[in-house]
Amino acid sequence: MVSKSQIKLIKSLSQKKFRNTHGLFVVEGVKGIKEFLNSDYELVSVYSTGESFELTGKKLIMIDEKELNKISSLKTPQKALAVFKIPPLKKSNINGLTVALDGVRDPGNLGTIIRLCDWFGVETLICSNDTVDCYNPKVVQASMGSLPRLNIQYLDLNDFIVENKNIPILGTMLEGENLYTAKLPKSAILVLGNEANGISAEIQKLLTKKLNIPQFGQAQKTESLNVATATAVILSEFRRNSATEK
Amino acid sequence: MVSKSQIKLIKSLSQKKFRNTHGLFVVEGVKGIKEFLNSDYELVSVYSTGESFELTGKKLIMIDEKELNKISSLKTPQKALAVFKIPPLKKSNINGLTVALDGVRDPGNLGTIIRLCDWFGVETLICSNDTVDCYNPKVVQASMGSLPRLNIQYLDLNDFIVENKNIPILGTMLEGENLYTAKLPKSAILVLGNEANGISAEIQKLLTKKLNIPQFGQAQKTESLNVATATAVILSEFRRNSATEK
Repeated sequence: MVSKSQIKLIKSLSQKKFRNTHGLFVVEGVKGIKEFLNSDYELVSVYSTGESFELTGKKLIMIDEKELNKISSLKTPQKALAVFKIPPLKKSNINGLTVALDGVRDPGNLGTIIRLCDWFGVETLICSNDTVDCYNPKVVQASMGSLPRLNIQYLDLNDFIVENKNIPILGTMLEGENLYTAKLPKSAILVLGNEANGISAEIQKLLTKKLNIPQFGQAQKTESLNVATATAVILSEFRRNSATEK
Repeated sequence: MVSKSQIKLIKSLSQKKFRNTHGLFVVEGVKGIKEFLNSDYELVSVYSTGESFELTGKKLIMIDEKELNKISSLKTPQKALAVFKIPPLKKSNINGLTVALDGVRDPGNLGTIIRLCDWFGVETLICSNDTVDCYNPKVVQASMGSLPRLNIQYLDLNDFIVENKNIPILGTMLEGENLYTAKLPKSAILVLGNEANGISAEIQKLLTKKLNIPQFGQAQKTESLNVATATAVILSEFRRNSATEK
């Protein structure tokens, strides 16, 4: 059974300002909820139409599909919905390969990038303050359970890069070096830019190495790669080098 | 000025059955429309709020934003909308690297894969009959103008592979060979599977080489890569090899 006030609260969490006010966010789907239960994230409550998640007590609330429809933000609700607490930001050491996003706005892109970082063993994801919120329901959905395994920090990207200027700062630019032949450092901060405008002029000045993903086939094509697929190509190239010991 | 019957026709083209009945599809946005005008596709009409596309005569219909809102399927209409004819399917020779999709359902994924094929110089994209229609408005949108540069064929994938069994048939499978160390042929058909179920059992039996994208970092992660990002990683690996002459 879901009360009217619970419905109102859960619905409000689709907006960033209410997530911040309450310090809560929503995860939908059995698989995603299990990934968060299996992590340091603190559960507030699970609303479930069947699956018990090995939980007992007040945190498990059994509901029917009609009730799930009322609280879900999905067109096809996924059998369960959970509310978790947003953890305090932890500052972690930057070592190995760190990905930094400069104003990525599309929730699907951020979710895909989170999943890619998890796959390719990137532990820390830095987001500029104007990057879409990682607790946005569409980001949580697109990240497919990878979110709790990543350390995600929102901060002033310019300050962060200046503080870490002892580490190579890489970014993709049209005039950059060929990704496939460039020597890639083991430790680096890899900057990826906004969907429409790329890396901001301010951050471009701070890059120590510019990389370019070469285009193949017919010439005179103008479109760039999508930021998430560019991330896939670059992370794969970093990891293949350590795997094949180029 | 848009007539009521034009509005009705354009709106109907968001559905596959009406696209097939009329042999027409919709492209939105100035940039995308220019890519199609610059190709073999035959224009029916452009509805524009300003840009003239260097067109004169009956095919250019100037409208206001209120009218554009009535015919657009986008939340934020993109200044122009055009109707083009769906070209007859052309059978092309399969040479070099060909991508084949086995039941990809998400329009965003298909659009991204089209864009990737264009970037990495793949000329022919084979789609199983149950793959989402490439003239679906969301596919056209996500492909960002790459669609007219690709030869896309819908067919029975099983028959197609059997007919081309002289060419290596590659697919990604968990138990496959490490993508980064496997010897990749110059000519191949690369099969990518459905978002939820991967490559179908029927097609799996026809694969001549199974590849796996290795996972890095923490163990015991269960999620696979999204089909579009997996495509990005594999196409990049194919092309880097020819570029760096491994």
